[in-house]
Amino acid sequence: MPTIVAVDIGGTHMRAASYSPDDVKPIKYQRIRTLASEPGGFERLTGVIEAVLPLGESVAGIGIGSPGPLDPHTGYLLAPPNNPQFHNFPLGEKLSNHFGLQTFLDNDANLAGLAEYRFGAGKGHSNVLYLTISTGVGGGVILADKLLQGHHGLAAELGHIIVDPNGPLCPCGFAGHLEAYSSGPAIAKYVLGELGSGTKSVLKRDVNLSAKEIAEAAHQGDELAIKAYQRAGEYLGIGVATMLHSFDPSIVIFGGGVSQVGNLLFDSFHVSLKKRVFHPRYLEDLVITTAQLGDDAGLLGARALAEMKLGL
Amino acid sequence: MPTIVAVDIGGTHMRAASYSPDDVKPIKYQRIRTLASEPGGFERLTGVIEAVLPLGESVAGIGIGSPGPLDPHTGYLLAPPNNPQFHNFPLGEKLSNHFGLQTFLDNDANLAGLAEYRFGAGKGHSNVLYLTISTGVGGGVILADKLLQGHHGLAAELGHIIVDPNGPLCPCGFAGHLEAYSSGPAIAKYVLGELGSGTKSVLKRDVNLSAKEIAEAAHQGDELAIKAYQRAGEYLGIGVATMLHSFDPSIVIFGGGVSQVGNLLFDSFHVSLKKRVFHPRYLEDLVITTAQLGDDAGLLGARALAEMKLGL
Repeated sequence: MPTIVAVDIGGTHMRAASYSPDDVKPIKYQRIRTLASEPGGFERLTGVIEAVLPLGESVAGIGIGSPGPLDPHTGYLLAPPNNPQFHNFPLGEKLSNHFGLQTFLDNDANLAGLAEYRFGAGKGHSNVLYLTISTGVGGGVILADKLLQGHHGLAAELGHIIVDPNGPLCPCGFAGHLEAYSSGPAIAKYVLGELGSGTKSVLKRDVNLSAKEIAEAAHQGDELAIKAYQRAGEYLGIGVATMLHSFDPSIVIFGGGVSQVGNLLFDSFHVSLKKRVFHPRYLEDLVITTAQLGDDAGLLGARALAEMKLGL
Repeated sequence: MPTIVAVDIGGTHMRAASYSPDDVKPIKYQRIRTLASEPGGFERLTGVIEAVLPLGESVAGIGIGSPGPLDPHTGYLLAPPNNPQFHNFPLGEKLSNHFGLQTFLDNDANLAGLAEYRFGAGKGHSNVLYLTISTGVGGGVILADKLLQGHHGLAAELGHIIVDPNGPLCPCGFAGHLEAYSSGPAIAKYVLGELGSGTKSVLKRDVNLSAKEIAEAAHQGDELAIKAYQRAGEYLGIGVATMLHSFDPSIVIFGGGVSQVGNLLFDSFHVSLKKRVFHPRYLEDLVITTAQLGDDAGLLGARALAEMKLGL
């Protein structure tokens, strides 16, 4: 049976693993530092892949995950954040030539969604909406059992849907995106703005204030901290309502660090979502849950992508 | 070769046609009044279908289009506007039993999009975004050559994406939907509101004011009329930016009466879209155009749906 090699290129670590069909556990697994500021990134990548090639087994292909923007149709990395040596880099073709194998590339959020669909919280669902809420907000969508990629490979950039055209700037430079309300840094930015306007809080006006510290203050009853998460959840509900009206999934899966705060974010999210969904049928048998796969979701998603594209 | 029968149930007319493969022109075509307020709607419908059945040819299936909401998976009409005898009506099953044929149902906007993809402006594209701007705003989306339907059959309700959470009420009762800015009645409502606030215009404060009259005033240089269409176009650009970030199509097709006003709406739409799309690649080789099929788009879409589902 054909083996799949999966690669996940993160900002701090590169991971690789080989998988046999029908087994979620890898045959071999390696993780090394990305060392993005040092030259030789491609050689480190081929090295970590070589380390997981199974002996005496044929490999059917290599699935690759990376932060975007990237082009899944051509295999080009366009501008992965914090990794300048991979800017405008034909990664798919380079790895394909090096190993003599077919390669399949997509971004980390799409692949985490695909992994949850195949192996995690979304198993058994054909229409899956995955959202990661972390330093940014990212999306991965499966429709009728197919990964949504789009013409340029830029579909499901769900952190960048416009929830208020007059809203605050997103790190991408445009106004009123979901990411500008509900990501960790957006929650911190809101708190810093309110502190600057004189709102009382146990939190200090420190540019390094994190969403985690704000969550701790909220758990101690700090009103500003509680309000900051409520606001993030309210806009998340507005954004997800638009996504339900667009995609009509049977499950919404939340991943990423910020989603782990639980009720602090999701109480107001649920109130907002119910207030905003324009027809009750969208919510009939809709599952709303958290991601089941941990750090290796990217690897499992890269593997699932290769299997999907190879028809395995 | 198998023939397909297509049916389009509109508010004023029911149409039916039979098609042989590879021919856009129908073998037979019939149009009758819907007469929604009179009983016997189902009998009129079976009658118009019988009138187009081809003699001596086998029929492979019946495709059916109707205003939503409806359930394409079960074939139920839920609550078609202005047609109470078809509320919660198992139309697919009823027609299937009556004719001994497989039936396939979807809503008019989805089917108009599917028709443009198969036979009209979207031919040759795999990822199509169709928007009809008329009394309402509706959407139809084709992704990787498949019609987007969703878990409950309620995907692509693109008139109901939220473009401003504090915006005016949509006829559906919820705030800030695209339809509440860019439909014909929304344009008229905006003008009436401005007239009520004392804005000068050649237009009169008349509850029956239509988007067509406003377009005529705009062509005569009326500033309020011009501004009303500019505003509709600006919000349309905001909504379509969110749709590009969600679906990443290679073509956007505009249908419906309001879209026929041309530059009056689309000049501000293009400015707004360019201002709102967060990555220039979405616009690379993106085609933005108007629908090619006329009144029979619904029939051709119903036919295309049946062919798609039957694998023809």
